[in-house]
This record gives sequence, C-alpha cells and structure tokens, in this order.
Amino acid sequence: MPTSDGGSIPVYRQIADDLRHAIVSDALEDGARLPGENDLMEQYGVARATARQALSQLINEGIATAVRGSGVYVRKFRPLRRHGQHRLSRELWGVGRAIWEADSDDRGYTLDQVSVATEAAPEYVARVLGLAADAPVCVRRRRYLVEDRPVQLATSFLPAELVGDSPITAADTGPGGIYARLAELGSEPAHFTEEIRSRMPAPEEMKALKLGPGTPVVVIVRTALTAAHRPVELNEMVLDSSAYVLQYDFDA
Amino acid sequence: MPTSDGGSIPVYRQIADDLRHAIVSDALEDGARLPGENDLMEQYGVARATARQALSQLINEGIATAVRGSGVYVRKFRPLRRHGQHRLSRELWGVGRAIWEADSDDRGYTLDQVSVATEAAPEYVARVLGLAADAPVCVRRRRYLVEDRPVQLATSFLPAELVGDSPITAADTGPGGIYARLAELGSEPAHFTEEIRSRMPAPEEMKALKLGPGTPVVVIVRTALTAAHRPVELNEMVLDSSAYVLQYDFDA
Repeated sequence: MPTSDGGSIPVYRQIADDLRHAIVSDALEDGARLPGENDLMEQYGVARATARQALSQLINEGIATAVRGSGVYVRKFRPLRRHGQHRLSRELWGVGRAIWEADSDDRGYTLDQVSVATEAAPEYVARVLGLAADAPVCVRRRRYLVEDRPVQLATSFLPAELVGDSPITAADTGPGGIYARLAELGSEPAHFTEEIRSRMPAPEEMKALKLGPGTPVVVIVRTALTAAHRPVELNEMVLDSSAYVLQYDFDA
Repeated sequence: MPTSDGGSIPVYRQIADDLRHAIVSDALEDGARLPGENDLMEQYGVARATARQALSQLINEGIATAVRGSGVYVRKFRPLRRHGQHRLSRELWGVGRAIWEADSDDRGYTLDQVSVATEAAPEYVARVLGLAADAPVCVRRRRYLVEDRPVQLATSFLPAELVGDSPITAADTGPGGIYARLAELGSEPAHFTEEIRSRMPAPEEMKALKLGPGTPVVVIVRTALTAAHRPVELNEMVLDSSAYVLQYDFDA
C-alpha cells in the first residue's frame, strides 16, 4: 500500500515502484531474479545505498525475498486475508468446518508440528483465563502452512478442568474443531476479543516461519468467552506479516 | 507477550526475562541505562551475540531503546490500546468528541504536521472509493503524538465532490471531527472495514515516527461507508508498532 507524501518521491521509491510494476504486471515472473544492486546503480545512476533501499522496500512488502549470496527474487505469494468476525461465525464451525478452512480463500491450510500437553499455566494465561497461578491448562501447539509455506504458529491454552479428556486433548479435534467441542461441553464461545501487536521475530520464530530478514511478525492473542463471559480459550498466534492481511468489519 | 515453546528457553531469552522483570518491577526506572553487552557477557558468562540478542529482544518489545554510541535505556512508554469498534461508535463522535480522544485511555493526543490539499486520487484510493482514475480527493495528512512522542501518521482521502468546501477541508474540522461533518452532509458513516498489515518502515516513516532500529510499523487502512454502503473516506494509518495494542471485540 503506497503512502503518498505530497512532496517529491524519494528515488529509491521510484525504483521500487518500477520493479513492483514489473512484478505485478507479470513482466517478472514468480521466482525470477531481480536486478542486483550493481544493475540498479548503473541503470538509475544511483548510489549503492539507494539501490539497496529499493530492494529492501520490496522485501519488506513481501513480494521479493533475499537469498544470501545469490540475490533478490520475486516471490508472488498472494497474502491470506484473515477475516476477524466472519471466520469465527457460528454458521461456519456449526456445520463442521474448522475455522481456518474458511479463512484461506480457495487455498487450504495444512498443519504440522501439532502437539498437545497439559502444563502449568504461564502467568499471563492464568490471569486472562481467570485461573489460579500455575493451574493446569491444555496447551495445543501447531504450525499452519499454505502452499508448503509456513505462515503461522499458534498456541491455544484451555483450562484443563474444562476440557477433561474430551477430543480437545487429541491431536485431531474432529469436525468443527475446538469450538464445536467446547459447545458440546456446554461452553460454546459467544464473544471474542483479539489483541494485536507487531514486533520483530525471536530467532526460533524466524526459523519456524522461515522468515526472510526484515520481516516482522504479527501477534494476535484471541480470547474466546462464553455467553456468560467465562474465558474458555486463549489462542496466541504468531503470523508471518508478509503472508497476511487482517480484516475487521463493523458497524458504527 | 511471552511465547511458551515447550522446550528449554534460549539463554538470551532468560537474560531478557531478567531485565524485563527488573523494568516491570521498577527496579530499573524509566530512562535508566541497562547493563551493556560487556556487563551481560561477564554476568551471565555468554558470548557477545547472546548479550546483544537479549538487549535486541527488549528493544523489539518497545520497553528499551538504543542510543547510538551510548547504550540501551529503559523506555516505559505504556502502549496505547486502540479499540476498533468502541472508538468509532456513534455515541462518541455524536456528542462532539473526536474519535481519537476516546482512544488513548487517559492520555491526550496532540496533532502536528496537519496539511489539507486537493489532489488527484492515487490508483488504490480511486479504486476503493469508487472514483474515476485521477478524480480529485481531499487529502488530510497529520501526525499524532502522545506525551510528545510521535506514534502515528495518518492520511485521509475523501471524494472532493462530496466534501465541497465544508469544514472537512479546514485544518480544524470542528467538534466531532470528519465523521460529524460527513453526517451533516448526509453521508454519515455506518460501516467500517479495517485492513491491517505490518512491515518495516520506509526511511521517511522512521524519521517522522522517530523509530528505533528493528521497530516495524502497523498499517491500518480504514474505509468508512454510509448505510447505503457508499465509501466516503479511506484513512491510511501508519503506527509505531511498539506504541500500540490493537483490540477488536466481536460476537460469534
């Protein structure tokens, strides 16, 4: 999304605009090598720092990726549009669809690195879920991939005394996922709060999400509450920022 | 927000946890100098890269800031909580409050660098607002500060033929701001869509927001629509990610 700044456009942005146009118009195909710093210096008569800035801009936007010692390549990964409300609507998971399936347009998610364990609740989880310090929680960790690209790490925490030995503690939670099972337990989620921050990734997040340099993560912490406002799940999601557009629709 | 990873915690995170605890518990006060790389290497018996990573972690979280050639300092800026819906509720701007005032807890925003101009709509603005290519738009740019710290750049685009010579084209739009004026023009916003991405800042954004190294920006593009779903404003906001928590509440 360009930012109009009313003044003269810096040269590095003009170069980035040219390259972006070539990518979007398919003059440069997916996986194609972009002109290097030397090429851009010669073509535009600019300093190396300016050429580098132009390439960095495209990397930051997620439409190019740097391969160490090789160059910068076009990466035409269409970002996923994650709808806040629609995705969680009862309609969707009520008919046996996992919430994530509805989320990825026509591209399916796959999961790997799924683990389920009972652990003592971290301090912030206990606080948000209204549990005693160190109370046992069911912790579900998984990684989401789209087109073989890891896009999200997610960790759900649910009160152990609530989920008992229900399928929520199984690797495969069955049709409709966690929320359908919570409904069966009489703790149907009715309200959601999502808190969003962005930051640079920790080294282990960079590795798990295969993030290129200069790619922040978006952290979404979603709390699901029953109609009686009892918190029943905290889900901490760490997203590759270049892979996602978040969308929220609401009325005045 | 910590990420539990189930395995052994990397040493840099343990160091970061110790330092964070000292900051949060007020053992280290606002503006205090954190131990340097050499101090941490000696105290924890770790390599320089590990010490640096621990400090970077705190900088990324926005609770410390690096001063070139001097060191890393505690920065106790409490992030702003930006509520999606509440902030925009009719109730608030209907009684003559600008949307931003309700947003900053008990801390007031100030504005600077306000400019208003009529310009040809950028392509993406024309598309979203349903205007002809290059149609004239009223462009309102401003910077928001809290406690003298710049936290957000915002650029609003409104169809010029809609706003005419109303106070929307003045630097001070009057009580209730743009939305109250749109209501007077018979184009009261009724629906909102917010799209959110995160990326590293462009150099001019780093400068305008006085961002430290390794601090991403969050970009929110909000479209305001009338009850008849006519888009009347596109507002592109660029936020210092370390200064904000975004919150959205919704029902299943």
